[in-house]
Amino acid sequence: MRLAILGAGAVGTSVAELAGEYGHTVTGLADSSSAVVDPDGIDVGAALDAKRSEGVVGSAAPEDVLDGEYDVLVEATPTTLGDAQPGFGHLRTALERDRHVVLANKGPVAERYGEVRDLERESEGQVKFEATVGGAIPVLSTVEDFGPDRITAVRGVLNGTANFILSRMAAEGLDYEHVLAEAQDLGVAEADPTFDVDGTDAALKFVILANVLRGNGREYALADADVAGIEDIPGSALELATEDGRTIRLIGEVTADGEVRVGPRLVPEHGTLAVTGTNNIVQFETEHAGRLNLSGRGAGGPETATAVLSDVGRLPER
Amino acid sequence: MRLAILGAGAVGTSVAELAGEYGHTVTGLADSSSAVVDPDGIDVGAALDAKRSEGVVGSAAPEDVLDGEYDVLVEATPTTLGDAQPGFGHLRTALERDRHVVLANKGPVAERYGEVRDLERESEGQVKFEATVGGAIPVLSTVEDFGPDRITAVRGVLNGTANFILSRMAAEGLDYEHVLAEAQDLGVAEADPTFDVDGTDAALKFVILANVLRGNGREYALADADVAGIEDIPGSALELATEDGRTIRLIGEVTADGEVRVGPRLVPEHGTLAVTGTNNIVQFETEHAGRLNLSGRGAGGPETATAVLSDVGRLPER
Repeated sequence: MRLAILGAGAVGTSVAELAGEYGHTVTGLADSSSAVVDPDGIDVGAALDAKRSEGVVGSAAPEDVLDGEYDVLVEATPTTLGDAQPGFGHLRTALERDRHVVLANKGPVAERYGEVRDLERESEGQVKFEATVGGAIPVLSTVEDFGPDRITAVRGVLNGTANFILSRMAAEGLDYEHVLAEAQDLGVAEADPTFDVDGTDAALKFVILANVLRGNGREYALADADVAGIEDIPGSALELATEDGRTIRLIGEVTADGEVRVGPRLVPEHGTLAVTGTNNIVQFETEHAGRLNLSGRGAGGPETATAVLSDVGRLPER
Repeated sequence: MRLAILGAGAVGTSVAELAGEYGHTVTGLADSSSAVVDPDGIDVGAALDAKRSEGVVGSAAPEDVLDGEYDVLVEATPTTLGDAQPGFGHLRTALERDRHVVLANKGPVAERYGEVRDLERESEGQVKFEATVGGAIPVLSTVEDFGPDRITAVRGVLNGTANFILSRMAAEGLDYEHVLAEAQDLGVAEADPTFDVDGTDAALKFVILANVLRGNGREYALADADVAGIEDIPGSALELATEDGRTIRLIGEVTADGEVRVGPRLVPEHGTLAVTGTNNIVQFETEHAGRLNLSGRGAGGPETATAVLSDVGRLPER
């Protein structure tokens, strides 16, 4: 397939680097201010070298990629809230041209799910978004496999930064501010970690899961989620929990009655939900098959790129 | 789809009971000595009642099911070693009639994988076998999703009976014979538990994984696996392990250099591989996405039936 990639952050560049190994051709790559386009396939290495040395991937404009030749638009620009722009507009343009869209950007399916599905219905293109939930973990393909109607509830840890901070606070007896600074030094937390520590990022992922699980009946957006973060958890709370054989994790859930909630919860210290470091876990309750747990790396460029490329592999040839 | 089901044990009867919910019609059901066939759909409840009260599912012969009307043959007769008969013959007959085959029986893909793939290539039908590895856990579909070439190794616990016995021995300080008797009382172990406790059952599943992961280069059968069981583990070994923060599990693996091994191994007591009770876990090492863990119920009628019915859902309409 010919891939056009919007966004040249960790995920977009990893998709560009791995696409050839998966048998695909990259015909366009754009960052926020520049682009490179070639219907026969761009030179990915040269584009990424140019970005490192000159700050631009090429001499074209980002909108040239959207209007160029491709079978699949990979939307990997930063997630935005509310109207989910410009990601939503990119998706609309590609679907109106009967192209497939694979999202790494959570915005369109978290904030405007109904509209995304409406546009998809009118298009010959399809929309896939495995990469928006749990990085390399095959969360949405498992839902599709089981059938959304046969999954009664889901819970888990879907933000690695918050999980790293809570794991370190518990293991080392350090307080929140100290561990956050350490996480920023290690590159585990961003300079502005707000959405990771206030629960927004995890909430967007559980909203997407709610849309997929209950999509026929009700549409969810971030405003429908009940969200609390980890910023105000004192080190002493983790100490108390440990004395009781428990620990604290930022747990999200879609309940059996369709509520979406994210917040710090006490969980058994050695239990399945208490993944360590930046790992993620998703726990499905199923109708006929009990509880199913999936855990692994929930973020990272190559990890998330494998989810994007698995989605591309599931799309029909145009 | 129209399903013909061979085998009326826990898995076969659960497939028959759940098929309607998944939108399928059961046109035949056979146990080892009797059958019921109706191209318009059998009365599943009546057949299972007849089996309970009279010991037969109907007045037809088992071979009538194989020769009847169906799109998918569900092969759920007991696993046999060596020539994998009669399961292999059932698969051959269905493929020669250009029907799809979904296996719950491990024999054909563990012992005669190359022949199965050869027969599939000459047929319009396809062969699926998610149910043969890890019950309800989507093990093989995850391999397909990632691409077998991008999974470098796999290890895990794929026999719930052995895992139950080792978990109980460690938790209660009891010896093997005592816990085995308890497991038999609970129905967790069969009257003849040989293949569960000597490692054969787990080895068959890792052989199937090896065939899927390395199928293009080399064919595996049970004889290629290096297998040890849990029958000779003294309670004292588990006590010593616990003192050291570890425990013993029956771990199978397909190594990066293509070896298949099953045997008791020391693992961290609270680590990911130390699942409890009859649970199973599979741990994939991937090329670009780190380690991925899948755990859940690895056996049971309805659990395994969901894997069969997920396979049916992936097959093209005939």
